[in-house]
Amino acid sequence: MTRVGVLGADGKMGRLVCATVDAEPDLELVAAVDPSSAGARVGELDIALEPAALVDAKTEVAVDFTRPDAVMENIRFCVEEGIHAVVGTTGIDPDRMHEIRGWLRERGDVGVIVAPNFAIGAVVGQRLAEQAARFFPAAEVVELHHDQKVDAPSGTAAATARRIAQARRESWSGPTGGEAFRGGEVEGVRVHSVRLPGLVAHQEVIFGTQGQTLTIRHDAPDRTSYMPGVLVAIREVATRPGLTVGLEPLLGLD
Amino acid sequence: MTRVGVLGADGKMGRLVCATVDAEPDLELVAAVDPSSAGARVGELDIALEPAALVDAKTEVAVDFTRPDAVMENIRFCVEEGIHAVVGTTGIDPDRMHEIRGWLRERGDVGVIVAPNFAIGAVVGQRLAEQAARFFPAAEVVELHHDQKVDAPSGTAAATARRIAQARRESWSGPTGGEAFRGGEVEGVRVHSVRLPGLVAHQEVIFGTQGQTLTIRHDAPDRTSYMPGVLVAIREVATRPGLTVGLEPLLGLD
Amino acid sequence: MTRVGVLGADGKMGRLVCATVDAEPDLELVAAVDPSSAGARVGELDIALEPAALVDAKTEVAVDFTRPDAVMENIRFCVEEGIHAVVGTTGIDPDRMHEIRGWLRERGDVGVIVAPNFAIGAVVGQRLAEQAARFFPAAEVVELHHDQKVDAPSGTAAATARRIAQARRESWSGPTGGEAFRGGEVEGVRVHSVRLPGLVAHQEVIFGTQGQTLTIRHDAPDRTSYMPGVLVAIREVATRPGLTVGLEPLLGLD
Amino acid sequence: MTRVGVLGADGKMGRLVCATVDAEPDLELVAAVDPSSAGARVGELDIALEPAALVDAKTEVAVDFTRPDAVMENIRFCVEEGIHAVVGTTGIDPDRMHEIRGWLRERGDVGVIVAPNFAIGAVVGQRLAEQAARFFPAAEVVELHHDQKVDAPSGTAAATARRIAQARRESWSGPTGGEAFRGGEVEGVRVHSVRLPGLVAHQEVIFGTQGQTLTIRHDAPDRTSYMPGVLVAIREVATRPGLTVGLEPLLGLD
Repeated sequence: MTRVGVLGADGKMGRLVCATVDAEPDLELVAAVDPSSAGARVGELDIALEPAALVDAKTEVAVDFTRPDAVMENIRFCVEEGIHAVVGTTGIDPDRMHEIRGWLRERGDVGVIVAPNFAIGAVVGQRLAEQAARFFPAAEVVELHHDQKVDAPSGTAAATARRIAQARRESWSGPTGGEAFRGGEVEGVRVHSVRLPGLVAHQEVIFGTQGQTLTIRHDAPDRTSYMPGVLVAIREVATRPGLTVGLEPLLGLD
Repeated sequence: MTRVGVLGADGKMGRLVCATVDAEPDLELVAAVDPSSAGARVGELDIALEPAALVDAKTEVAVDFTRPDAVMENIRFCVEEGIHAVVGTTGIDPDRMHEIRGWLRERGDVGVIVAPNFAIGAVVGQRLAEQAARFFPAAEVVELHHDQKVDAPSGTAAATARRIAQARRESWSGPTGGEAFRGGEVEGVRVHSVRLPGLVAHQEVIFGTQGQTLTIRHDAPDRTSYMPGVLVAIREVATRPGLTVGLEPLLGLD
Repeated sequence: MTRVGVLGADGKMGRLVCATVDAEPDLELVAAVDPSSAGARVGELDIALEPAALVDAKTEVAVDFTRPDAVMENIRFCVEEGIHAVVGTTGIDPDRMHEIRGWLRERGDVGVIVAPNFAIGAVVGQRLAEQAARFFPAAEVVELHHDQKVDAPSGTAAATARRIAQARRESWSGPTGGEAFRGGEVEGVRVHSVRLPGLVAHQEVIFGTQGQTLTIRHDAPDRTSYMPGVLVAIREVATRPGLTVGLEPLLGLD
Repeated sequence: MTRVGVLGADGKMGRLVCATVDAEPDLELVAAVDPSSAGARVGELDIALEPAALVDAKTEVAVDFTRPDAVMENIRFCVEEGIHAVVGTTGIDPDRMHEIRGWLRERGDVGVIVAPNFAIGAVVGQRLAEQAARFFPAAEVVELHHDQKVDAPSGTAAATARRIAQARRESWSGPTGGEAFRGGEVEGVRVHSVRLPGLVAHQEVIFGTQGQTLTIRHDAPDRTSYMPGVLVAIREVATRPGLTVGLEPLLGLD
């Protein structure tokens, strides 16, 4: 049994992680921390206000889904206390990575996994797209999201386009008429962003060559799409001292 | 048996119409005309150079897949000779429609059907989209074509967007971030144009509302997609004196 | 402001209806009833244990998402008290319809709407499929659901297949090799049922004819897909005395 | 310039190969053979009746799209004459492979490539499916073909299912209700076969896990889908003495 604690336990993702961990036979939820939730509970566990509760509960792995302004302090605390950390909070840029690596140099036994995207299907899909691009330089990306998403293209679509651009052996650019309708370009790859109510999070990469197309599509109708990736990280983090970025290494995809 | 003649019989569409008519038990191919094909044959039929061959062969219905610069003369000839005409040639604008109606006033017994699109699936799909738009004002169009198509959006996509705009009871506009990726607008409806080798002619209209989407997709991998619509027109034209525009009335869709 | 009450207010659908009604400017949630939820609240409203609370609150329209064994008693109560009813509970067979019509004969001013499916996209999609079937007799249905769904095919898929069978002018049966792989038949229409984790509720009707296919797809990733249909029913029920079955008449689709 | 000859040059695939080779700047079509086509031509080349014409024309690489009863004799002739061979003809079972390897033992400098499927998109798609199966044991295959295809499932779908079954780390079987609608099984993987006019050759592999699906789709609307793979084989065969089976090794996919 691995003893797991959750930071940000009263947020949407945090509550989901708590419930998911609770349901796994080899994991035990021993601590739930959320500074803004005095008096609240998660299942039968009182929510603690301070990370110190992780130590009291003998937490082995902490999962952090908090906020950019809180996450660094949490990671530093975990590393100093010898608690492995799985971090899904956004906003960890290269400078912050560098800082985390510094802390870890002092504690060679601790592992930290930081992943911008725990949706295993999205991660695998991106890798498949990268491979397909070696054979099919002609590619376009269509990403479809709910109408509350105000930016375009999605971060995943932009990342996918960049990987295609780097993996393909020759560039490709389609016909140029009607530019306004032909999507935007990310490193030479056209990306189209559809926004509608009723959509959730979907992405289609279409590759074409003579007489055929190959399409890789990812649909994530549900916030729970992060959970399989979070579980892999919880189970692997102790075996990977130092900083690991992204799910790929854990999946044997690098 | 209806006696059918084909104008433009040696072009790609013309040859296809000849073969299709030939295979139908209730139709007989009696004349094939193409001014540029001296000495050629279609099946067992010698290709004639002049429309007069239609009269000699006692043609009842003529099908015209020629060129914008030839089609008006052909239609005039047919109307004067009392031959019903089914016309798939492009470039028949409202002025030309008006001219054809003038000729038909003299010959109240003759029918002419002019259709910009004989692909029955596209025509029905457009009508379904129009109906769906009454219930789902939020809609976007994604059209996907081969990379030899230099204009964007496709004519069918633009027409579909216009129909949606007119049919919906309230306008809808999605979020506005990342404009370059959000497609072009046709009367307020976003249209995205994908161009890749290996694609042929495809269109997807996506409607969204709370918790669900409804998608109408048409795929026409093959030039033969026009043939079912041409056959309907050949069989119906004698019963519709005057000018009929589009397949819709023949399908009971107006 | 229409005064709305909810029966089964503490169930998943009931809670969703309460929240949805609460958010509409022209509707007011005045009563929440659930016999099994003593002491619970919905927003600022105490949940009542007895339908009598509807009367006390001067409810104009009651929405029932309860259970087959409770729903008939609820409807009878509403009709007798002159409260219009919108019913999404399953299990209302023709015999029960007959019984409801009997009660309504005594109260000519009351309206009851019973709908097996409030997902407006599914209802419209079925109607579009019915129309397409007039032009394309060749059709197959692929329905895709999560792996907790133990029956196959889905009720919606079976209903769609029956509508296609009745609407098409000629029957169609595809090739017969490899029967085990060719899906099951509902009135001569092949239906394929895919079951996988990560799917929610999806259906694709594919129509084919020479050189083209036309596909109508419905995706409902979310239980909230029922809400737009429930709101239409709440707003329309007072104008439709007697029993109305299905959303179609409310959408002008019959 | 590589000198290329085509066996079965007057068949549909043969004519396509001739035209494709002809259009490539680094390849020269020097011989066209077809025993049943006395007097016919391919472009400016007279069709020869005997394979001996390959030798006369100093052919370096021969492409064979003939018939199961002719192909073995053709391969033997090529190997003996020191002509590399690219073979797309079906019906080369393991026994025949063994026989070809025997001939090649005598001619260590000659290469023969035999591929059951030259559609590069299908081959790459299968490989991607194999990789995805490592992460997503739950998978089903939907293959869609024109209604003239009398067998089910397609050979490609059966091969894909077998690869998934071998690649995944744990077996998966979905719910069991409604068996007739749940497709057939190939090594424990459900496969659904849709047959409709207007379809050509399409395959979708859907993988699912918590909250998400990943789909790999291949569409080959056109017989020309084989040409990119045939060209790769023509250009690579001289560098691969002995027997090579399948496109995969040429694509660096083994």
